Amino acid sequence: MKTVATLAPLTTQLLEITRINSAASVLSWDQETYMPAGGGEARAEQIAVLQGIAHDKLVAPDIERFLAATVDPATGQAIDQPGDLWDEPSRSLLREIWRDFSRAKKLPSDFVIRLSRETSLAQQVWAEAKAQNNFRQFLPNLRTVLALKREEAEYLGYETSPYDAMLDAYEPGATIATLRPLFAQMKARLVPLLKRVTQSPNQIDDRILRHAYDQTRQLEFGRLVLVAMGYDFERGRLDLSAHPFTTSFHPTDVRVTTRIHEHELQSCLFSCIHEGGHGLYDQGLDQRYFGTPLGESVSLGIHESQSRMWENSVGRSRAFWQFFYPILQQTFHDQLHGIDLEHFYAAINCVKPSLIRVEADELTYNLHIMLRFEIEQDLIEGRTNPGDLPDIWNQKMQDYLGITPPTDAEGVLQDVHWSFGAFGYFPTYTLGNLYSVQFFEQAKLEMPHLNEEIAAGQLLGLRRWLEQKIHRWGRMFTPDHLARRVTGTSLNPEPFLTYLETKYSELYKL
Amino acid sequence: MKTVATLAPLTTQLLEITRINSAASVLSWDQETYMPAGGGEARAEQIAVLQGIAHDKLVAPDIERFLAATVDPATGQAIDQPGDLWDEPSRSLLREIWRDFSRAKKLPSDFVIRLSRETSLAQQVWAEAKAQNNFRQFLPNLRTVLALKREEAEYLGYETSPYDAMLDAYEPGATIATLRPLFAQMKARLVPLLKRVTQSPNQIDDRILRHAYDQTRQLEFGRLVLVAMGYDFERGRLDLSAHPFTTSFHPTDVRVTTRIHEHELQSCLFSCIHEGGHGLYDQGLDQRYFGTPLGESVSLGIHESQSRMWENSVGRSRAFWQFFYPILQQTFHDQLHGIDLEHFYAAINCVKPSLIRVEADELTYNLHIMLRFEIEQDLIEGRTNPGDLPDIWNQKMQDYLGITPPTDAEGVLQDVHWSFGAFGYFPTYTLGNLYSVQFFEQAKLEMPHLNEEIAAGQLLGLRRWLEQKIHRWGRMFTPDHLARRVTGTSLNPEPFLTYLETKYSELYKL
Repeated sequence: MKTVATLAPLTTQLLEITRINSAASVLSWDQETYMPAGGGEARAEQIAVLQGIAHDKLVAPDIERFLAATVDPATGQAIDQPGDLWDEPSRSLLREIWRDFSRAKKLPSDFVIRLSRETSLAQQVWAEAKAQNNFRQFLPNLRTVLALKREEAEYLGYETSPYDAMLDAYEPGATIATLRPLFAQMKARLVPLLKRVTQSPNQIDDRILRHAYDQTRQLEFGRLVLVAMGYDFERGRLDLSAHPFTTSFHPTDVRVTTRIHEHELQSCLFSCIHEGGHGLYDQGLDQRYFGTPLGESVSLGIHESQSRMWENSVGRSRAFWQFFYPILQQTFHDQLHGIDLEHFYAAINCVKPSLIRVEADELTYNLHIMLRFEIEQDLIEGRTNPGDLPDIWNQKMQDYLGITPPTDAEGVLQDVHWSFGAFGYFPTYTLGNLYSVQFFEQAKLEMPHLNEEIAAGQLLGLRRWLEQKIHRWGRMFTPDHLARRVTGTSLNPEPFLTYLETKYSELYKL
Repeated sequence: MKTVATLAPLTTQLLEITRINSAASVLSWDQETYMPAGGGEARAEQIAVLQGIAHDKLVAPDIERFLAATVDPATGQAIDQPGDLWDEPSRSLLREIWRDFSRAKKLPSDFVIRLSRETSLAQQVWAEAKAQNNFRQFLPNLRTVLALKREEAEYLGYETSPYDAMLDAYEPGATIATLRPLFAQMKARLVPLLKRVTQSPNQIDDRILRHAYDQTRQLEFGRLVLVAMGYDFERGRLDLSAHPFTTSFHPTDVRVTTRIHEHELQSCLFSCIHEGGHGLYDQGLDQRYFGTPLGESVSLGIHESQSRMWENSVGRSRAFWQFFYPILQQTFHDQLHGIDLEHFYAAINCVKPSLIRVEADELTYNLHIMLRFEIEQDLIEGRTNPGDLPDIWNQKMQDYLGITPPTDAEGVLQDVHWSFGAFGYFPTYTLGNLYSVQFFEQAKLEMPHLNEEIAAGQLLGLRRWLEQKIHRWGRMFTPDHLARRVTGTSLNPEPFLTYLETKYSELYKL
């Protein structure tokens, strides 16, 4: 039987490509954390060169020849010779390498370099434009990036909409056709629930979260929670950046960032837990497969399921704070000494239509995504003029959430994603929310004492379960196959919707 | 006349190579500043891949063909066609590109990758071994690196000693034959001077420097001096690392590091000024030539002349502290309020044979270098067993400086250089010392009010002079040509020796 070892001529080359990509990721991490402002242009060029080289190496003739002999281009599956079959890992490996190769092969080298350079630059202009609350400053770069992404979709090909080509990049198999009914189903349950919550006579007082909290202590508490989650600081770091993110150069060097606002206790705290969830996934990947798709995370939706599970199912649960709240009270004695656990638990679960996606409560969060999903389709399919985005954004915020951003910085400019060309990325956040509860329900079934463990600050059992069930497999299974393998069913919004209805019915005494 | 523009087919490719090298430098910077300990092995591989690619691209057939048509390999000089001459910049450019190409061409690709990987790893093992004071831990890596460097010298070729091939890498033109008499000449003047100083009845009391100084304030003061020097923080950063260093990814992103010891005021202060001198050189390179040798510093000796000039000729001068001492006194009021300027000036110029090179006074510093120069020759020429290094080191310390390190961490393990294969690097420190005074004397001639400017905290005049005379030229001239161009003569130890004799005669009332 042929094994992964049989693929050594291929994996040796992929390892080199992965190392180049890792180097580019170090440069991006530096760009977002420590790079001096003046270094931006040179940095964009450095990253573009590396990405161009990585692309060229992936579409090199010897890789193409090897794949032509081993993969059926019609199905994307390994070709079996009678009596000499591929084993399961090598079969998965060939499928995923083919996926990467065939996508890359469709993109001209000079396009890859142009896209890299323009998105690096646009990301820097976006940061400046957001700081200045000046959408017009960002608009030319946005137009450039949009045009490049449309060009990319044409190279990649699609059946119905160029947006499908973009969705598939982040979530293999996702299409407008599958996402639309999903969002409709969620909307049908979430909008009435939101109405009942906002009209409940039992409103939550969350003002305590907006007192002044020392920034250094906020960061130290975030670090403490990361350690408890099993995030390994020997193989990772926690830094500050404008937009929290996780990046990985190897399972032995996985870095998370956060941001701190003195008057928003939630911001640093939950971004640490959220990014920590991402970080555990990347630290939990199988090192033996580093450099191949089996050493990579399977999709953004599954990745986000890990961050959202830790942030919400764990981090906004009563059990979690039974252990951690007394520590938080000690850390911020002046602010919290008269506030009991129930008050705090309610405050961090307060539902309130708000401007900023990453700080939205669990109920309104997906409305932020729906808005972006609609805007992205219209942009990509050419129905929207990018210059009109601020108005469109504000109108949709009013329609979905009943509020209008006072500034573009808090509106259309709030997220970094479009600046680096990540159209089709936002929907994976909603997929992540759905998967997270689906997985967590399964974890509770298989670990009957999970709630008690969490209430005792013992988070490593859950971490191990996730590592065994999800992290270590990399791209061995497709996202859908993985979901079925872990929970017995494909993506199912029901657990998520039931979870929200139960949680908020209790909190708001509906 | 043919200009640099004529060389575009070549410079376009060099630009890409430079960007790859810049990326590798970002990875090295990260390794020394922020990388988590676990990430070291993966990092070594990433850097090795990038250096391998950069090497392959430099020795590519199209570059070779272009150079074969434009450079005479016997002389390394541009070939002129009658009536169609190269202008001076393009002539320099071809000479320097040929130098880089012909060196690289002699090294096999797999050797370059092995050397990169082994030196990255050895550097990390060295740091660990130094922390543990365990030379044996580092010894296997040192043997590996030594063997690789000998192999490299064989590829590069040499006339007399493999050590000459190594010297030339850092200081074009330097050989054992030129350095030996130079060191002998210095020794003949410095050893008697040191004897007179140590036997003087007028000894300096420098205990004030070893009081407790708040680390954050030390760093802030270092930053203040860097700003006064004209180091541009929009195009640079100051971070902490075990061993202070400067690195540049582009003139718009030049980073320096320092270290802080609570009980050694000199350490952070003078390493900031020293690295700042390096940083000014790299920030002062001509951006238009970035990606070519004309956008690179000319030699390590000249580079070191910049750091040592700022550190010693400026930073240890009475004039400098006339302006900065009152600020330092305000910063550390409790420690310094009863200490007058003369006391402080004497303390920072106290001569005392000591263990650590980077913290040595100006008089004993070059004895540290001589010791390394001798050891390196013996190591490279195979007369010394690396396992005997601690004993040899300690014996030479006793011979030259009259002291013996109590630990290897303060002895043979103190410097990072050998771990990354930088044999032949140390002598450039002495060249830097000599050049620094030679250049500074010239600056004083051309700027009659330089001393008054410095005493008024006005350092930008000197910075501009250095930029115009040295920095902006990159590798346009050889080090020797540059010295003659700036000062009218080749390297001359006389100004340095006279400077020391004058300075210490006054301080020690000889």
